[in-house]
Amino acid sequence: MKNHIYIYSPSGAVRDKAAFRRGVARLQSLGYDVEVDVDALASHQRFAGDDPTRVQAIQRACDSGAAVALISRGGYGITRILSEIPYRAVAHAIERGTQFVGISDFTAFQMAVLAKTGASTWAGPALCEGFGVDAIPDDIMESCFNDMAQGQGEGAGWRLPKPHAVDWNADQARRLSSRRGIIWGGNLTVLTSLLGTPFFPAIRSGILFLEDVAEHPYRIERMLSQLLHAGVLARQKAILLGHFTDFQLTAHDKGFKLSTVVQWLRSQLKVPVFTQLPYGHIATKVLLPVGRQAKLLVEDRDALLYWG
Amino acid sequence: MKNHIYIYSPSGAVRDKAAFRRGVARLQSLGYDVEVDVDALASHQRFAGDDPTRVQAIQRACDSGAAVALISRGGYGITRILSEIPYRAVAHAIERGTQFVGISDFTAFQMAVLAKTGASTWAGPALCEGFGVDAIPDDIMESCFNDMAQGQGEGAGWRLPKPHAVDWNADQARRLSSRRGIIWGGNLTVLTSLLGTPFFPAIRSGILFLEDVAEHPYRIERMLSQLLHAGVLARQKAILLGHFTDFQLTAHDKGFKLSTVVQWLRSQLKVPVFTQLPYGHIATKVLLPVGRQAKLLVEDRDALLYWG
Repeated sequence: MKNHIYIYSPSGAVRDKAAFRRGVARLQSLGYDVEVDVDALASHQRFAGDDPTRVQAIQRACDSGAAVALISRGGYGITRILSEIPYRAVAHAIERGTQFVGISDFTAFQMAVLAKTGASTWAGPALCEGFGVDAIPDDIMESCFNDMAQGQGEGAGWRLPKPHAVDWNADQARRLSSRRGIIWGGNLTVLTSLLGTPFFPAIRSGILFLEDVAEHPYRIERMLSQLLHAGVLARQKAILLGHFTDFQLTAHDKGFKLSTVVQWLRSQLKVPVFTQLPYGHIATKVLLPVGRQAKLLVEDRDALLYWG
Repeated sequence: MKNHIYIYSPSGAVRDKAAFRRGVARLQSLGYDVEVDVDALASHQRFAGDDPTRVQAIQRACDSGAAVALISRGGYGITRILSEIPYRAVAHAIERGTQFVGISDFTAFQMAVLAKTGASTWAGPALCEGFGVDAIPDDIMESCFNDMAQGQGEGAGWRLPKPHAVDWNADQARRLSSRRGIIWGGNLTVLTSLLGTPFFPAIRSGILFLEDVAEHPYRIERMLSQLLHAGVLARQKAILLGHFTDFQLTAHDKGFKLSTVVQWLRSQLKVPVFTQLPYGHIATKVLLPVGRQAKLLVEDRDALLYWG
């Protein structure tokens, strides 16, 4: 079972079949036994099958008994089926040892599962963007993935930007030894789109990580404002910002940029905000256990998230 | 006082100065006495001045004693100052007869004022996009604006699309005589970005109108899902969809489009959803009194929102 991976498509339709095939081949070359869901390549409008098709795919992923249930890709589609996800089956599969892994739109699944059952899933790659790239997949991502699949991953470390004084201060550092909490988060747009609904987890004293793709900094700020005004951010022990990629600044911005937003966020919060978490729509990323207790350790410019 | 208009900039910086000047000239040619706020053309990053500057501009609009306080333009910026808006001054100005008018980002101001004070404002044009166009401004919009300024507007009517069976059914029609409620709403993205915060009005049995610009239908659907899952939509007496404009469908959509979203929304709700409300980022639009009691009348393909 430890090398059995189940590939399924709960979100957008797979258009890049070559990337899908490359991803499957890569996982096989890493020694995994890859099982592909019967509807993994289904297509209905922009979705990987209509709503019942995608709900059934999730059910089959639960029933697969695989070590890892990995999404083919993100996109959009889980929000539509939040009321139909078989939460008990998901929690039961997780109890029996299946690790659910995904990114982006998958954040909706992860948040809803956490809110409804408390069960833990993994923020990590999707098949196509992680293993199906038209090059050699990133070795840090693959090694984190292998650790996760073998149950050996214990944490993730990264280097904070210089000058670190921007990222935190000595006072915050002294309080850091006690920064233990539940790791949660994911895609900012998807996570924020659940606020105010029963699918948003009520995590207090957690360690919240966020990333996004193709969102202008003003939209990132507006979403952070919503989490701020809803009281979500102030309730956490730390905010970890991953990578926010693939947006276009315009002439109208006149100096308003992503770092402006981070600066603004820090001015609004006592909770420390750390950047450069290696997670997001980037090749080199770690896997993060959403819903698990972890400890955040920071020493000088070295940050470590430890959940072993 | 009845012809005194105060122009101020609570959101984005005015870049198109020519449109601004044309708008002022147009209002003057309509017989209005136009007063321009000292910081109406201020610029700080993408904003019309930094946060305190824009808060002070709102305060001066309150103090102006004008018949109408009209924003220069939308953009983004009000979300940042929601905690600093002088709500009591705004409510007091409204009591004394100042009508606050705006669109788009201004939805954040309108929702927050409604949530904090219950006071009524107007969804309508902004100076630049409404009166500063490089052509003759739309006569329906101008006539609704004049009615509002003179305190004479009593309602807004529009034609429902054909076949109207798609828009409503006989059973819903019979129940329609009792569809009386508070008109509220505005820009879907901005309104949804307040959900879960103290700036989101708790309106039950209201008539909710929504519009948006440059948002792909899948994003519109995701936002409607959030309002749906939060219980907001089912609590209303009617949902009125204005215009959703300026988005690009892609090859990946394969038939997923705006009408797909409307159809999906109707399948999720017992509350009737009417389309084609003449409001949004379009020239021909009505003014709508946010926070006021109104009655929605529908007969065959004619819809009328009456607040007289």
